[in-house]
Amino acid sequence: MKQFTLQELAEKIGGQVEGDGSLLISGAAPIDSAQPGQITFLANPRYRDHLHKSRASAVIVDQKTTVETSHALIRVSDPYYGFLQIFLLFNPRKELLPPGIHPTAVVHPEARIGQEVAIGAHVVIGKGCRIGDRSKIFPGCVILDGSEIGEDCTLYPLVSIREECRVGNRVIIHNGAVIGSDGFGFAPHGGVYHKIPQIGRVIIEDDVEIGANCTIDRATMGETIIRRGTKLDNLVHIAHNVEVGEWTVMAAQVGISGSTKIGHHVMLGGQVGTVGHIRIGDYAQVGAQSGVSKAVPDREVVFGYPARPIMRAKRIEAAVNQLPELVKRIRELEKKLAALEDSASD
Amino acid sequence: MKQFTLQELAEKIGGQVEGDGSLLISGAAPIDSAQPGQITFLANPRYRDHLHKSRASAVIVDQKTTVETSHALIRVSDPYYGFLQIFLLFNPRKELLPPGIHPTAVVHPEARIGQEVAIGAHVVIGKGCRIGDRSKIFPGCVILDGSEIGEDCTLYPLVSIREECRVGNRVIIHNGAVIGSDGFGFAPHGGVYHKIPQIGRVIIEDDVEIGANCTIDRATMGETIIRRGTKLDNLVHIAHNVEVGEWTVMAAQVGISGSTKIGHHVMLGGQVGTVGHIRIGDYAQVGAQSGVSKAVPDREVVFGYPARPIMRAKRIEAAVNQLPELVKRIRELEKKLAALEDSASD
Amino acid sequence: MKQFTLQELAEKIGGQVEGDGSLLISGAAPIDSAQPGQITFLANPRYRDHLHKSRASAVIVDQKTTVETSHALIRVSDPYYGFLQIFLLFNPRKELLPPGIHPTAVVHPEARIGQEVAIGAHVVIGKGCRIGDRSKIFPGCVILDGSEIGEDCTLYPLVSIREECRVGNRVIIHNGAVIGSDGFGFAPHGGVYHKIPQIGRVIIEDDVEIGANCTIDRATMGETIIRRGTKLDNLVHIAHNVEVGEWTVMAAQVGISGSTKIGHHVMLGGQVGTVGHIRIGDYAQVGAQSGVSKAVPDREVVFGYPARPIMRAKRIEAAVNQLPELVKRIRELEKKLAALEDSASD
Repeated sequence: MKQFTLQELAEKIGGQVEGDGSLLISGAAPIDSAQPGQITFLANPRYRDHLHKSRASAVIVDQKTTVETSHALIRVSDPYYGFLQIFLLFNPRKELLPPGIHPTAVVHPEARIGQEVAIGAHVVIGKGCRIGDRSKIFPGCVILDGSEIGEDCTLYPLVSIREECRVGNRVIIHNGAVIGSDGFGFAPHGGVYHKIPQIGRVIIEDDVEIGANCTIDRATMGETIIRRGTKLDNLVHIAHNVEVGEWTVMAAQVGISGSTKIGHHVMLGGQVGTVGHIRIGDYAQVGAQSGVSKAVPDREVVFGYPARPIMRAKRIEAAVNQLPELVKRIRELEKKLAALEDSASD
Repeated sequence: MKQFTLQELAEKIGGQVEGDGSLLISGAAPIDSAQPGQITFLANPRYRDHLHKSRASAVIVDQKTTVETSHALIRVSDPYYGFLQIFLLFNPRKELLPPGIHPTAVVHPEARIGQEVAIGAHVVIGKGCRIGDRSKIFPGCVILDGSEIGEDCTLYPLVSIREECRVGNRVIIHNGAVIGSDGFGFAPHGGVYHKIPQIGRVIIEDDVEIGANCTIDRATMGETIIRRGTKLDNLVHIAHNVEVGEWTVMAAQVGISGSTKIGHHVMLGGQVGTVGHIRIGDYAQVGAQSGVSKAVPDREVVFGYPARPIMRAKRIEAAVNQLPELVKRIRELEKKLAALEDSASD
Repeated sequence: MKQFTLQELAEKIGGQVEGDGSLLISGAAPIDSAQPGQITFLANPRYRDHLHKSRASAVIVDQKTTVETSHALIRVSDPYYGFLQIFLLFNPRKELLPPGIHPTAVVHPEARIGQEVAIGAHVVIGKGCRIGDRSKIFPGCVILDGSEIGEDCTLYPLVSIREECRVGNRVIIHNGAVIGSDGFGFAPHGGVYHKIPQIGRVIIEDDVEIGANCTIDRATMGETIIRRGTKLDNLVHIAHNVEVGEWTVMAAQVGISGSTKIGHHVMLGGQVGTVGHIRIGDYAQVGAQSGVSKAVPDREVVFGYPARPIMRAKRIEAAVNQLPELVKRIRELEKKLAALEDSASD
């Protein structure tokens, strides 16, 4: 059985001990199920009262929350994140895909495969591809000619990457995501559509995470870019020639139309849609299901269909909400005014 | 050629014959194309007149509809469903994947495979997986270590299931669906996101059906649960730690945010989105494209963006619809009032 | 190095030369990066001023735009499309999948494979399938028994096609798309859902393009049809028994409910949803994110949630936008009217 002192655990997550740092901890569990000898966490002060009933020996809590408890504490800025780090110390994740190339994988002889790379069963890697050191390509992935994957990446099962794309280091791509499919471009001539060749590519920078079954189209010419650290939830659609800045977050089922530029540290709620060829500024936030039909300035918070600045959107929503009563008030006004006019004309 | 008497067919679908039960039936077809000797159905009384022209020898109809026809009848509560059952008697579905393990499948020696299981070409099944009796795993599916599939399940091509998930009995999962991808969780520290490990799993209970290219994320800790009999249409997104009750139905492209609890016998229309951490009550119904931003009580019917109780939503929609005219009426009122004030001050 | 005279290039794209037709051109590039000896294009007259700075030797421009430049010109109706055609002359696309059947592909002995067909690694093709001449089936695709693919088709990696479907000629299907999954149909009996067998199929006609991770369900009975030349962007959902007419375009994440009929030359914006069993007329247009709850006549342009004719929708949106001010005006009216009533009753 693994054991750590409370002080050792605090150091691993950058926290401070309050109480007995020599206490031996042998496991981590949620507040309700933790046993003596285990550590738990309190992320939401509302659940403070659960602490008294918890059988845990120690608690991870933030710097501000006052807790009346006999438990030993680790104080840290994000108790939940700290707890999960400690949980993984006690319960390390199983190695699902050890380094090596599965005999059923089809790796082109002109592909360059780095050190300690893991390539699962039935993976297909094309001519001129490069896979960086320690990356893991799970079963069923397909990477077409000339695409490059950096170091320490994880491609979960059945990810597919079209030709000539670039994926940075430490990128995680979840099952079924598609990188580099053709952009949606057609030239209409006399009631018929001619396909506009999509000869660009996709660039995904370091530390990006892409959700399951997302689709990221290659550029018509040039590049569709997802910059460093950006995180996409599942089923997100990124059209051709879109650029997404660093450390931006998109919730599930967002759709970004062609050539739109999204800044850094932007947050888009679930099912948001944007028109093409606009800019969404740095640090902007867009509420769930909003329809963004024009540019959003830096740091603006917008919401609604169509998306409007949040204060305005809320005032409009409040007014819409009382609209049936407003109709009555207008009818009442008309009646009273008619009566006044009648009496005035008498 | 297969033949059944009308009486035999009625018994197979739990219906009652009106007319000659010894009539021999040799096929089933829609009302317009049925030939003599065949049976058809009338599901919608509006199409009653088509009956006179139909060459079918017998008709499946519900218990209430009065039909003036010389056809022999089978009366049953759901004529369409009854017809399809009879159609399948005459046209049994071809066996697409006979029991056996295809030689190209990669099944870990420590996986336990039940009796009469069918495993298609290029399937990958990891260490410690269990596949129950008579289940069919179509070509290209990938099931990672420690996941269990019950009995009589069907996984259509290219389904992928991450590690340690549980799928019950008689579950159908359509092409490309993803079970157990990481939940979308990141801890922000100084403008940078740190991935919160997603160490939970997904539980799918018996008789669930999951549409093509759906994504169901594993829990951060604990379980994302889809309870018995629930049906998801295509491209539905279920976030981490969501729980969906029994016999609930979600139309295509619905998105459920993290930790939301959905009751049993709920109906969600297409493209509905919900915020996280709310409860949608048992038997609740949510209209298509609605945005559910707060809890919905049991049996409530809600609609709109944001979702409101249906009667209120309809009154608001009606008022919005006459809004341009309301603006005119307000302008008119202002004019008349100004005139009155003028004359009063004269 | 490839070279063409300007006259040769003009003929290849159906344009007219203005200037020296014997000029030798050895490459094509965007306006900012083009070098002497290369050709560029001007699609948007707003960028006319960039021309003066461009080092390109020739420019493709439309018939109307007046340009004050010393460059040789090719005049053509769609300069961007013409440029891309010329770009591909200088930079022909690499052959990603040469004809031949990869040894790891599993092709049923009773499948009929045409001339010069390319079948990639780990592809699975079932009994009775037919693949037409020159079609390319990329790695990881799965085609179940009895489905037919026409000539000159491209199925990108990990496309799956269920049994008995038909795909025409020159069809392009992008990664991860699913054709022929079961329609979403259940008969409720006493709080429990019974699956309605989905025994129809999907027909995709010539020249259709289907985006990545789209899902197209088979009909309950009969056929789900996508007619000639229609283009679907990524993540589009087409339910059972839907019919989509010729040369119709759907942007990403559109969802069409069961049995709805969509005309020809229709345009649907991104994330549009429609109810089932309606008709959307020929040449109709639906704005992004709209919710179409009833039939749309031919050539109607609709928008909003619910979708309304565009002029009406815009007037309503304008009125909604001034709603907070309308509330104030009504309050003001009420105050003034009360004052008038007071003074009248004095």
